[in-house]
Order: sequence, then C-alpha cells, then structure tokens
Amino acid sequence: MNVHIVTIGTELLIGDIINTNAAWLGSKLTEAGFKCDRVLTINDDEAEIRRAIDVGLSEASLTVVTGGLGPTRDDITKKVLYDYFDAIPKLHQQTLDHIKTVLGRRNITVTQSNVDQAYVPDSCEVLFNERGTAPGMWFEKQGRYLAVMPGVPSEMKYLTETEILPRLEKLFPDHHRYYSRYFKLAGIGESTLNDEVLPDMDRFTNGTNLNVASLPGGGGITLRLSVYAGNDQEADEKIEPAAAYIRQKAKDHIFSTSEAGTLAEKVGELLSTGNKKIAVAESCTGGYLSNLITEVPGCSSWYIGGINCYANHLKTEIVGVSEQTLEEFGAVSREVAMELAAGVARKFHADVGVSTTGVAGPSGGTPEKPVGTVWVGYYDSNHHFALKLMLFKDRKVNKQRGAVIALDITRRVLQGISAMPYGLEPETSALSG
Amino acid sequence: MNVHIVTIGTELLIGDIINTNAAWLGSKLTEAGFKCDRVLTINDDEAEIRRAIDVGLSEASLTVVTGGLGPTRDDITKKVLYDYFDAIPKLHQQTLDHIKTVLGRRNITVTQSNVDQAYVPDSCEVLFNERGTAPGMWFEKQGRYLAVMPGVPSEMKYLTETEILPRLEKLFPDHHRYYSRYFKLAGIGESTLNDEVLPDMDRFTNGTNLNVASLPGGGGITLRLSVYAGNDQEADEKIEPAAAYIRQKAKDHIFSTSEAGTLAEKVGELLSTGNKKIAVAESCTGGYLSNLITEVPGCSSWYIGGINCYANHLKTEIVGVSEQTLEEFGAVSREVAMELAAGVARKFHADVGVSTTGVAGPSGGTPEKPVGTVWVGYYDSNHHFALKLMLFKDRKVNKQRGAVIALDITRRVLQGISAMPYGLEPETSALSG
Repeated sequence: MNVHIVTIGTELLIGDIINTNAAWLGSKLTEAGFKCDRVLTINDDEAEIRRAIDVGLSEASLTVVTGGLGPTRDDITKKVLYDYFDAIPKLHQQTLDHIKTVLGRRNITVTQSNVDQAYVPDSCEVLFNERGTAPGMWFEKQGRYLAVMPGVPSEMKYLTETEILPRLEKLFPDHHRYYSRYFKLAGIGESTLNDEVLPDMDRFTNGTNLNVASLPGGGGITLRLSVYAGNDQEADEKIEPAAAYIRQKAKDHIFSTSEAGTLAEKVGELLSTGNKKIAVAESCTGGYLSNLITEVPGCSSWYIGGINCYANHLKTEIVGVSEQTLEEFGAVSREVAMELAAGVARKFHADVGVSTTGVAGPSGGTPEKPVGTVWVGYYDSNHHFALKLMLFKDRKVNKQRGAVIALDITRRVLQGISAMPYGLEPETSALSG
Repeated sequence: MNVHIVTIGTELLIGDIINTNAAWLGSKLTEAGFKCDRVLTINDDEAEIRRAIDVGLSEASLTVVTGGLGPTRDDITKKVLYDYFDAIPKLHQQTLDHIKTVLGRRNITVTQSNVDQAYVPDSCEVLFNERGTAPGMWFEKQGRYLAVMPGVPSEMKYLTETEILPRLEKLFPDHHRYYSRYFKLAGIGESTLNDEVLPDMDRFTNGTNLNVASLPGGGGITLRLSVYAGNDQEADEKIEPAAAYIRQKAKDHIFSTSEAGTLAEKVGELLSTGNKKIAVAESCTGGYLSNLITEVPGCSSWYIGGINCYANHLKTEIVGVSEQTLEEFGAVSREVAMELAAGVARKFHADVGVSTTGVAGPSGGTPEKPVGTVWVGYYDSNHHFALKLMLFKDRKVNKQRGAVIALDITRRVLQGISAMPYGLEPETSALSG
C-alpha cells in the first residue's frame, strides 16, 4: 500500500507558503499504514495535473491531490478531472445547500461560480466539505484510488479525518497500521543520548521493523518508537522492550510520554500535586518563559505571574534585589539570579520562584560575559541556587533555550532529581543557599 | 528559464520534517528569475532519483537536487550520479583536506566512508562545501544544468548563495530577475483591504507582469509587489505606480516597508524618536507581548519591562489597580484595562503603559464575557483609553492576536493616528479620559 501526494499551487512552488499540508498528510497516511513514495508540487497547469494523476493511478494504491478547487479562473483541478475521467457534471444538492447557507450567513450573493462548485464529475463520490464551499472528490480506477481535496489546511484536515481515513479503513481492513510511542526528553543533547545513554538501541531495531526517530522542535528531544502492526497489542509487544530500555536508561531526562506534552505542562502537574504556586522573574528571556507557562490551559491554578524586569530599577524596586548586589556583581550574575528568584517568590506570594538573567545578544557581550551567558535562578523553601548556561549567539534562540532550561530545572527540583545537567562550568553548578 | 526542485529523504515524505528547504529554494530561485515548475520529494530510491534527474534534464533549464549525500548506506544520490553520467570517481583534494580538518577538530577518526565523500563523478564541477563534509556537484548536459547539494539546511543555503546563484548570474546574464517591494499592514483584514481600501489594484496588474500577493504570518498582512525586470530602475518604474496607490490608500495601516519589519520594531522607533519608554501589564496575553517586544535587538533603550499579572493580587499589589475596581467590574473590563495601563506606567516609571486583560480560553468564558473577549488599555500623558476586542476560540491565537493588536494600537497613538479599527463593539471603542 503506497501513496502519492500531489499539492497544487504556485504559492507553494515559489516559497510563499511552506508545504505543511504535505507533511501533515504524509504523517497521517504513514500512521494509517501507507508508504509515502512521492510528494509532488505543481502549478495549476493542465498537462502537469494530468501527468501527476496518470503516474499516481498507475503506480500508487492511493493518490491524494490538494489544491486548485477554488472558484477563480486559476483553479483548474476539477476541469482536468472532468476531462481525465471523461465525466459529465452532476449537481451535488447537499453541497449547493451548504454553499447557500454559508454565503447567506455572510450576506454574500451566490454567483454562478459558487453554484459551479456544487457540480462534480458524475464518476466520483463526494467527500462532503462541512468546513468550506469546495467539495472533496473520491475516484476509483482499476483498484486504485484518487482523493481530491481543497488546499485550505482546515478543510483538507477535516476531509482527511472524516472521509478519507475511514474509507481506507474499510478498503484495506487487514493492513498493518504504523503505531508510535513517544518519549520527550530534556536536559540532554542528541549525540550524548544516542552514544552514551542509549548505546544499545540497535539491539532492538536490528532485524525488526522497529523504527527509532529523534524529532526536532519544542525545546527538547522527542524520541519516537514506531512499528507496523496488526493491532494495539501486537504493537505493544513489539515496542515495549525498547521502551523499557529507554525508561530505564533515560529516566530523569524523560518529562512526558505524550506526543504533545510540554515541559510547562509537566511543571504545572508537579506544582498542582504539591499544592504549590510559581512566579517567575525574567530578564534576558524577555517574557518567553511566561509565554511558555501560559500556553498551558488552566495554568492560573498553579501560576501566579511573572515580571520581565528588563530595566535594573525593576529588579530592585519591584523584585527586591539589593542595589549593592547589582552594583557589585552586575545584572548577569549568580547573585542577582538568586535574589531575583527569591524576590519574585516573596513579592508575588509564590512557593517557587524562578529567574533568568543573561546576555541574549546580538550585542552587549563582554569577554567575561559573552553573548549567550545566561543565569537561571531557583528558589523554594528547600532549595536556593543558580546555574550558569553558556548558550548561543542568536537572540531568539537564547531567549527560547533559556526559558526551556529554566522550566526543566524547575521540573527536576520538583521531581526530586538532583542531577542538573546544565551547569556548563563546574564552579557554578553547585547548589548553594 | 525554469527550474525543478528535487528533495530526497524519507523524513520529508512521512512528515517528520516540513520541507522548508523547498520553500527557501523556490523563493530564492524565483527571485533570481527562474520559474519553478515542480517540487518533487522522493525516497532514497535509485529508480526514483534517476527518473527525477531524467525529467529535470529533459524539461528544466536547471534542476536542483538536495539530500542523500551523507556517509550512511541509505544515502545513494552520488551512486546514482555515477551511473547516470557514466562517470568515474575523482578525488577532490580540497574537500578531503577540509574533511580531515573538520573531523580532526572534533577528534573523530577519518574512516573510509569519510574519504569516499571527497570523491565525485569526474564529469562534475565541485561546489565546495565549507559548511559540511559532503561536497556539492554541478553537472551540465546539452545546455541544461543539474546542481546537487546536501539536505542540511545551513549547507544547502550556503552552497546556493556562494556557488549556485553566482553561476546562474554568469550563465544567464541577460535574464530578468524578480524584484519585490513589501508593505506590512496592521489593523485591517484581508478582504476589507482588497475590497474596500484597494479596490483598483487590478488597474496596475491587468496586462502587466506586476504580481500582487498577500502573504500570511507575523500578525498582519504583508503585501508584496513583484515584477520581472532587467534592473533596479526598470523594476522601480514598473512597481512605483501601484506602490504609490497603496501608500495613498492604505496609509495608516502601513507600519513597515521592510520584508522583515515588525510592529514591535516600529513601536521602538517611534518611542526612541520621542525619547519615551514603555512598560506593559499583561494578563491574558501571558508574556507574549513582552516576548514580541524583546525580539527587537537593543529594545532596552525604549522598553523598561513588563508584568504578567495573572493573579488578581498582582494587579492590585504590584500594578496598583484598586480592589474596588476589580470587584465592581471584574478583571476583564475596560476599567481594569485602563488602571493596568496607567498603573504599570507609574509603577515602572514609563512614559507609555499598555495592558491586556481578557479570556484567552479554552475555558473561563461567560455569556457576557465569552472566550476571546480581550481589553487592551493604553496610557500616556495625553491619552488614556481601552478598546474591546472580540477575538477567537483558540488560546494560543488569542494570546498572539491580543499582543499584536496591543502593539498596533500603541503604534497608532504614537503616530498620531486617531483611527483605531479594533473596537469591534461601538460603545466600547470611544476614547475616554
């Protein structure tokens, strides 16, 4: 079972839009057990569309086409389908009613080109598009299938989930799906993880169909274990030995086993369990730490708030850092990071205080405190310390990494983990307080 | 002059990685004057790679291939090239020296597969890869060109800019490049812009090669005007009439004419010019407003700081909102938004204070204050008001839109623009003192 994905649209070819549709479809169809052989992007060009359909219907079990179904002159996908399948237009009444309702709600007059959208080739099944005005279409030719959808991401996703995946389930009942389990890790680099913590992963993948992937993004490593299997139980049996190995070896680094799990969410769970609340004082991370925390719905039950104390007078007047400490050690220092963490906890009435202060860049670095120098401070009734990070040259990256690491340090303390793999300079990583 | 882009790698097909390389290449080659006809993504599969090269070398002036050049067994692109061009391996000494230096720095032993990377088909020119160990390759066949590069984005971009684009300049000296000018707008929706503010854009595009595109992202609309032209002056002449029309009609909505310009940057410029400083008090935007501001390098010269006063006691104790106001009107109200804006300016010693308070969702909405209700408050010595926004159902979107709109309201006041197209409910959009 293999699939071709064809995405139509000049905006994709000239890079105005990044092709997230293809990635989403590739991921969903892989999960559904299909092997994705090709993704092709072309213009709204009759000959090119025809050729892509030809190749798909002769080489792939399924071809998924998106785009070119709008009401404008440029959008010619449906015209090509009429020709290709030698079909005549057939009115799909449900779609016409839906178009009239949608446009009526917006007080838009229904034009002929709107009505035309409700006509489809008589040889297709309609994939009813609740989310838009262009219907999806489903064709079969000599045991191969062709699905055609609008390119609007919300409509494409809706039709894939409600119409295409259920059809595939029925058409290919015995096929193996692709099952995955996720481990989200923080506080460890990819090469250290692979070379030192999990040196024996090969043991589980050699000679099996188990696939291990490290996925980028989200301020940590996401390890994914995947297998083709006939059902949940078979997948579990195939994945569990490798999963057990990861759990055992990467223990403290794992903060979630949910694909969408975040560090902030985990910190929130731990705080809620301990009936504690947190406040943050950010300097160099500039609000990004607060932003990560407030991404979590319902965070107000464990998050009091934050201050982005960019100017030094906020550090002293609002958070209570002593002027003498600031003058003696400078804003980017262990001492200020620690006073910020304790101060924000006290002033904001929080149990836990976390702080960041550093040189985000691009300018402002000195030989002693180069761009990328970031201190993270932590305070609660049992712990009070600061760790020094040596991050990167890029301002945005430094803000993001600094905030993510501050969350991971918090997680580790709340979980009772003493290893803090972040103090890159030995003399600065000691707990003090 | 047309181009095919071929990206090789299973990780792209199964959606583990979004194909940003193709978008970047499409954009750069379009700028360079090429018409991008197809982007094809395939596995490391010999027959597929061969077919893609065949199609490219018979249909495109230029084919750009990325991926499959690593030292592992999966990476077979170079093997296919040897076969395809019936070539023999030739050592590229500069690449070998470079590989030895790079690996030596990392204390990695040079293996045979590393040495193999320095061999290339004798029929190609080497695109020397300063940024990595796999060299790029450049082939010519009957007046058509084939460029092959590693898929690592930093290496691909480096080779495109230092090797490929300069070669194209020489090979196609008389071709027209694609010139673009940008207008970044805020405070207006795409349909209002097109239908009401710029109804006559067609006048400039009909019968010309001027292209107008609305690009997504970044919390506003980016209008791009592009033409094929032989030089800067010709491009200016072709673009200027439409640009003048946009400047005249969309006046107050335009905040930047730089592709990378942001609202925060513009606010910073205006504050710097007026020798003023800003502070922000965020509730529902949760740090995202501070985050947008601190993306701007050097913002400390005009930004004092922010507070994310999530808990109500921060609004009163730290920002100075009166308990009575909070009790009487609730946290999500015009009155609290106004007191937050004035309070943060006073407490943080800023000239300008901006605030947000609202229901970000997904829960917490009521019939009177549904999810998406957001108040933005503004204070300076001449203005003090709040505007009510009715945003969306999505928490993340509400945080981002709320923060962007707060910046645009600030920009408008600082520019002396009285039109505030954000008060969606008439009774709430009045300025008050």
